[in-house]
Amino acid sequence: MIILGIDPGYAIIGYGIIDTNKTNMVVDYGAITTPKEDSLPVRLQAIDESLKYLFDKFKPDVVAIEELFYFKNQKTVIQVAQARGVIVLACQKYCANIYEYTPLQIKQAITGHGRAEKGQVQYMVKAILGLSAIPKPDDAADALAVAICHSQTSPMLNTNRV
Amino acid sequence: MIILGIDPGYAIIGYGIIDTNKTNMVVDYGAITTPKEDSLPVRLQAIDESLKYLFDKFKPDVVAIEELFYFKNQKTVIQVAQARGVIVLACQKYCANIYEYTPLQIKQAITGHGRAEKGQVQYMVKAILGLSAIPKPDDAADALAVAICHSQTSPMLNTNRV
Repeated sequence: MIILGIDPGYAIIGYGIIDTNKTNMVVDYGAITTPKEDSLPVRLQAIDESLKYLFDKFKPDVVAIEELFYFKNQKTVIQVAQARGVIVLACQKYCANIYEYTPLQIKQAITGHGRAEKGQVQYMVKAILGLSAIPKPDDAADALAVAICHSQTSPMLNTNRV
Repeated sequence: MIILGIDPGYAIIGYGIIDTNKTNMVVDYGAITTPKEDSLPVRLQAIDESLKYLFDKFKPDVVAIEELFYFKNQKTVIQVAQARGVIVLACQKYCANIYEYTPLQIKQAITGHGRAEKGQVQYMVKAILGLSAIPKPDDAADALAVAICHSQTSPMLNTNRV
């Protein structure tokens, strides 16, 4: 099973692709970035096109995406949520098999406890995937964490499908 | 000039189309609705497809869309912002000539003062467009208000292009 994990964002969107049928599960990871100088519509279109490219190239069977939670900054939450809408729509159009996980669920799945530090999660991503270093940028490591989280959740008990 | 005004939302998205070259400016208005029973991805896709239909049918020269402001309910703001991202992306793909207006700017343009009540704005929409009744639902009236706001803003001085 090829899983595309996504860490949603506006300026930077992390992605991580794993193939659970392989011993070395990592297929690819990285980040989509949108330049500050561009307008909102142009940045949203860039996100849509970059995701389409990833779906075309890697043909994931499933997408696992992090849920958006409370932010202190109202402007930030609106920007990230607008981008997340575009991301979810792209997932629906190009795959239509989408699961959402909360940060708590992801930390729980990766480290065994829901209040783990960011560094612990990243260290475990590196360990689980047998990588020589923690994947960079952080957003890519977070996206791989969502993908691993999905791979470790029993399909029969999974209530995270959206 | 054909202007498509949009009042963004998640469960209900108002739209209003006016043609400033005609004496009876109103071309069409109404609302796109997405059923609560459907999942987020399905609802976002329905919004995208409905907007595509409107763009294909009415071929607007420009889109005017209301900006999103502070909400008390964090869950609501995330839902509406996710939908707004999809709406802005559709506008970019199908028209690429987009203007954003704050609620204050819209009220100011329609009634002459930025703190007007909703009812006053709707009454003025009816009067300006020479309609026999206030357009329903409210979201459609609000969308017509954004379209009128754009038509009344001097193109040379307009800094609301995004």
